[in-house]
Amino acid sequence: MSIQRISVNPRLSGAVLHGGLAWLSGQVPDDRTADCAGQTRQVLAKIDALLAQSGSDKTRLLSAQIWLKDITADFAAMNEVWSEWLPEGAAPARATIQADLASPDVLVEIMLTAATGV
Amino acid sequence: MSIQRISVNPRLSGAVLHGGLAWLSGQVPDDRTADCAGQTRQVLAKIDALLAQSGSDKTRLLSAQIWLKDITADFAAMNEVWSEWLPEGAAPARATIQADLASPDVLVEIMLTAATGV
Amino acid sequence: MSIQRISVNPRLSGAVLHGGLAWLSGQVPDDRTADCAGQTRQVLAKIDALLAQSGSDKTRLLSAQIWLKDITADFAAMNEVWSEWLPEGAAPARATIQADLASPDVLVEIMLTAATGV
Repeated sequence: MSIQRISVNPRLSGAVLHGGLAWLSGQVPDDRTADCAGQTRQVLAKIDALLAQSGSDKTRLLSAQIWLKDITADFAAMNEVWSEWLPEGAAPARATIQADLASPDVLVEIMLTAATGV
Repeated sequence: MSIQRISVNPRLSGAVLHGGLAWLSGQVPDDRTADCAGQTRQVLAKIDALLAQSGSDKTRLLSAQIWLKDITADFAAMNEVWSEWLPEGAAPARATIQADLASPDVLVEIMLTAATGV
Repeated sequence: MSIQRISVNPRLSGAVLHGGLAWLSGQVPDDRTADCAGQTRQVLAKIDALLAQSGSDKTRLLSAQIWLKDITADFAAMNEVWSEWLPEGAAPARATIQADLASPDVLVEIMLTAATGV
């Protein structure tokens, strides 16, 4: 089975496709002045774009990891945006933990796997 | 390849099945007055149930992530319960890190992938 | 599809192979007196060995999680070693977060999935 990579740089690929699976890199927001809800919306927009480039979409998510800088303050806000974004009945497996991320103004990062193809 | 989801809610599915793989959500204990050993036992019982619903079992684990709220205090206690639970010679790949979890009284969370089918 | 395990102990397997995928355990350095660059080099050498035992190599990486004890201090140093190690154009999907690891002198841990076989 061949491997296809999307948005490759020397550190990471935005997505890697292999054998019917898409492995996405953790996505972070570009405008980090936004609050956690706004940052989550940005992250999910980037994920929509990566999934489209991968021949997948948000109806075919398998698993998600979500990192929040402040899980006590931001769990509810992230969940509201996340659940609105998800198609009904298509939620992936998920774990959400608190972690400091690559930059102190990043409040949320999301990494997904998804199914590709038919 | 079709996708099958188990215990779906608006945020997550307990398990997602696709192409011979089961992706489980991070499991946390219900009785959070228990110590880390007790919480780990609860988590593993929930995982056994999810694996059974997924057509898999603990002899077919592929990979695990384990989060401990206090890795210094609880690493040994979690490992003892974990190793007793695992069938001999069937341990998954694993990483264990420290993290604050969705609620301050959650001491351990475990997320797994497993093989399904024959 | 059968499951093959490499370097199995009662807690974890160094790698688990199934259906064209290799799931590696999080790798940590042995000499923990080294700085983060040195620890990253040790981790990547252990990963090279595990990938070889798995019938894979660093040209076939799918996804990586990298944990740093101090992401502010060590992100650049880890990235430099990581990018030198990666073959051009073959970077996996990746997420890097800060976390305390199994021992306070472990500065970096890396967990990978890779494709095996042809």
